[in-house]
Amino acid sequence: MNRHFLHEILNPESIAFYGANNRGQGIASIQIMNMIASGYQGKIYPIHLKESSVMGYKAYKSIDEVPETPDLVIVVLPPNIVPGIFKECGEKGVKSIILCSGGFRELVGEYKNTLTEEVIEIAKKYGIRFIGPNCLGFYNNWIYPENDRIALNTSVWEKLKRGNFSIASHSGTLSSHIWFDPDNIDVGLSKSISVGNEGDIDVVDCLEYFKEDKTTEVIGLYIEEVKRGKKFFKLAKEITPKKPIITIYVGGSGAANRAVQSHTGSIAGNSRIYDAVFKKCGIIKTELVEEFLDLAVVLSRGIFPMGKRLGIITNSGGPGAMIANHAEKSGLIVPELSESLQNKLRDMTSMTASVKNPVDTTFDMDLYNYYVSIPKTLMESGEIDAIIMYGVFGFQEVLFNYLKNERIAKYAEFGKENDKSNKKKPPLEEILISPANKLIKKHSIPILYINPQNYSSSWSKKIRNKGAILFQLWDRPVRCLAKLCEYAEYRRNNS
Amino acid sequence: MNRHFLHEILNPESIAFYGANNRGQGIASIQIMNMIASGYQGKIYPIHLKESSVMGYKAYKSIDEVPETPDLVIVVLPPNIVPGIFKECGEKGVKSIILCSGGFRELVGEYKNTLTEEVIEIAKKYGIRFIGPNCLGFYNNWIYPENDRIALNTSVWEKLKRGNFSIASHSGTLSSHIWFDPDNIDVGLSKSISVGNEGDIDVVDCLEYFKEDKTTEVIGLYIEEVKRGKKFFKLAKEITPKKPIITIYVGGSGAANRAVQSHTGSIAGNSRIYDAVFKKCGIIKTELVEEFLDLAVVLSRGIFPMGKRLGIITNSGGPGAMIANHAEKSGLIVPELSESLQNKLRDMTSMTASVKNPVDTTFDMDLYNYYVSIPKTLMESGEIDAIIMYGVFGFQEVLFNYLKNERIAKYAEFGKENDKSNKKKPPLEEILISPANKLIKKHSIPILYINPQNYSSSWSKKIRNKGAILFQLWDRPVRCLAKLCEYAEYRRNNS
Repeated sequence: MNRHFLHEILNPESIAFYGANNRGQGIASIQIMNMIASGYQGKIYPIHLKESSVMGYKAYKSIDEVPETPDLVIVVLPPNIVPGIFKECGEKGVKSIILCSGGFRELVGEYKNTLTEEVIEIAKKYGIRFIGPNCLGFYNNWIYPENDRIALNTSVWEKLKRGNFSIASHSGTLSSHIWFDPDNIDVGLSKSISVGNEGDIDVVDCLEYFKEDKTTEVIGLYIEEVKRGKKFFKLAKEITPKKPIITIYVGGSGAANRAVQSHTGSIAGNSRIYDAVFKKCGIIKTELVEEFLDLAVVLSRGIFPMGKRLGIITNSGGPGAMIANHAEKSGLIVPELSESLQNKLRDMTSMTASVKNPVDTTFDMDLYNYYVSIPKTLMESGEIDAIIMYGVFGFQEVLFNYLKNERIAKYAEFGKENDKSNKKKPPLEEILISPANKLIKKHSIPILYINPQNYSSSWSKKIRNKGAILFQLWDRPVRCLAKLCEYAEYRRNNS
Repeated sequence: MNRHFLHEILNPESIAFYGANNRGQGIASIQIMNMIASGYQGKIYPIHLKESSVMGYKAYKSIDEVPETPDLVIVVLPPNIVPGIFKECGEKGVKSIILCSGGFRELVGEYKNTLTEEVIEIAKKYGIRFIGPNCLGFYNNWIYPENDRIALNTSVWEKLKRGNFSIASHSGTLSSHIWFDPDNIDVGLSKSISVGNEGDIDVVDCLEYFKEDKTTEVIGLYIEEVKRGKKFFKLAKEITPKKPIITIYVGGSGAANRAVQSHTGSIAGNSRIYDAVFKKCGIIKTELVEEFLDLAVVLSRGIFPMGKRLGIITNSGGPGAMIANHAEKSGLIVPELSESLQNKLRDMTSMTASVKNPVDTTFDMDLYNYYVSIPKTLMESGEIDAIIMYGVFGFQEVLFNYLKNERIAKYAEFGKENDKSNKKKPPLEEILISPANKLIKKHSIPILYINPQNYSSSWSKKIRNKGAILFQLWDRPVRCLAKLCEYAEYRRNNS
């Protein structure tokens, strides 16, 4: 099989690095430290005029002195010396460069320059393919398929778990540390490529690569301009019935266009035209970075609802009402359940409960009923396509927390012999979440859970580790689900 | 001064409590444990048919046996026995009741009942004022003004820091544990009242009370129906020029109305009419619970911008472009800065920076320049009314984190003598945030900071503790600021 040329760039066996030092100052140093920290197993050749070694690797005054032709060269030095570096790399036989340096076509006024054109010309002459300028490198989380603890991160600072989500982005921030808070985003990265100003390699190349890449199942794009529009949209149309594409497109407002121009030198187009074309191609568009991440989390699970009918399960009226209100305004349907289904649910709930949808159990401490039996009944009814479930609190934790108070600890009758009696039972999250997971898969009906306690609280962590898609409040899951259902509809109609 | 009757209810010296036990089961038990944990200093009289004591307090078989007439009675027992309880309380001379029990006018079908009417009649006969039914009590964080570590929390579970934000709500969840994650919401609670079905005391009473209450400076409402509309809107109009009112109103969609009906038995009205009236009264409306909280945080600082012109400071182009795009779509203005201001800013930034607005410094490690000098220059220019500042990372933490890697620790030249050299300097957050705080106050120009690292990360915590309004990503601060500016405009025009 012929591999895409980006595969070679993302899987080098040796890397030369222009710009890093030992003082930890500047982005270049952070990038080389990230390569080291990510566990890269190949050879590293720092190029430095003065240092004899960088981070313990022998440094070379020029690429000429490096004992082999490195598979990849990374450049993080001032723009005016970049053409020279490209030339010496070309002479050495280098075929792939990541040009991180900024200061190219995004500059204006007295700083305006023709360096971009110079660099492109030299690259063409020597047959060099390059990413950048003005980019933040890439992250390949699958360079060592057999070991998910090591990767190649030529980018900046976060260590991300491995998964099926791949990114191409005009913004280094959006590609490199989109997961600034990696422990609290339940999606794993496959590959991420910061394309910068797209002097050579562009988002279309990335799409081509991701299309065939077996470890990419969901694609995320941040774009400020689509250069090869025809090719882009043709590719997108081929990809979206199989792999969802989530896109942030920035443009359409005067200030955004100004920002975009000074960022990557792009001319952003009319956002309404983009909207229409994105829709036609099945691209999921968002303007919110939180939603971009939420969609990645939900889509990476591969559960696509068969319609837009939302079942709401709650143990509190207010959130139930807010979810219903927001859901209908977001394009979901919150159907009143049939009489027969209501009767079934009434048998499972208390007098104060409501069973029309939202299904509001009010206060119900029968957790198996809440987490498994009620969702099962809804799923088997055929009346709903997706579920949002509010109020999956860590009740046990709340209760035990009271025992910190002296009086309560002295007089309360709970919490005293709990340890013994629970020893033989499987953990609660196993009892509650595993059966729900099976139902979700069987019916292709996702459940989005909401626990308003801290996202890293004990119970939240336990159920997230079991695979529950969890949110801390109820605005984001509603919007995210509305977009998921819309995409799922496109996918059904186009596959 | 004549105090509002709600002041008496919220500051009782003795409380009788129907429904709690020692087993920690049911909401009543959680509520009494909360009263204890919150540090309530008054007398507690549990009423229980079988127990001789509850949580160490002597229990009484009926209120008749209690040695005094308690200032307040809390009832959390099945609805059918509530009329009897109201009668015996009336006979005892009780004047204030919190009726938490559900099962009143929100029930339908075979469970439909006239208990609400019965209870109201009994209350009238004995001159009892009551909150509820179907509510979750209240939280008074100012019952002991001299000690902010104790409070009276008759509600559920979270312990909230003291502040100037007061809530009245048709939803117990929205009033009682709106701060499920209290360590990560930087606003303090003054009073919170869960009004439930409004059998007697309603949101209008709460507004009347909050209007005069000295410890309330920002008001939050969650409403499903406005019963005394004329009075409500008259009051709101009087209040909003002095104290902002943030309101979640749920209604307008079929499912929301259904949810509302089975929640508090309310009939939600046309949301477009509400929208118009809210606007006229200067009420800040939102449908998002996150935004409700964000607005509370921002409004509680009391900084009201004089216009809608946003200055964006960023060290990354992508977030800058997204903020600009989102801001203009949200009704803010992102003006291109004047030539002279651009020249000033150009002197303060590097070659790769952009100074048009967004002011994108790209990579700048001169933190004082970034946190203080650039905002100061923007503020003094008179060209902007509010600032969003992206990228206030904990760079030091990031850098030192690399030292966990063996190779980096061995070869890096940083982090080795840091402790000594820094000993005499004030902490970094003092150097960076305190001067910014002074500027914010002086110019009445708020700064909303964004650090995408974990909200509880060391640097985030440090600057939040110094008073910085911090967000983790950039969608929410933009929306929140747009609403703040809109409100500030109303306030200017109506005071």
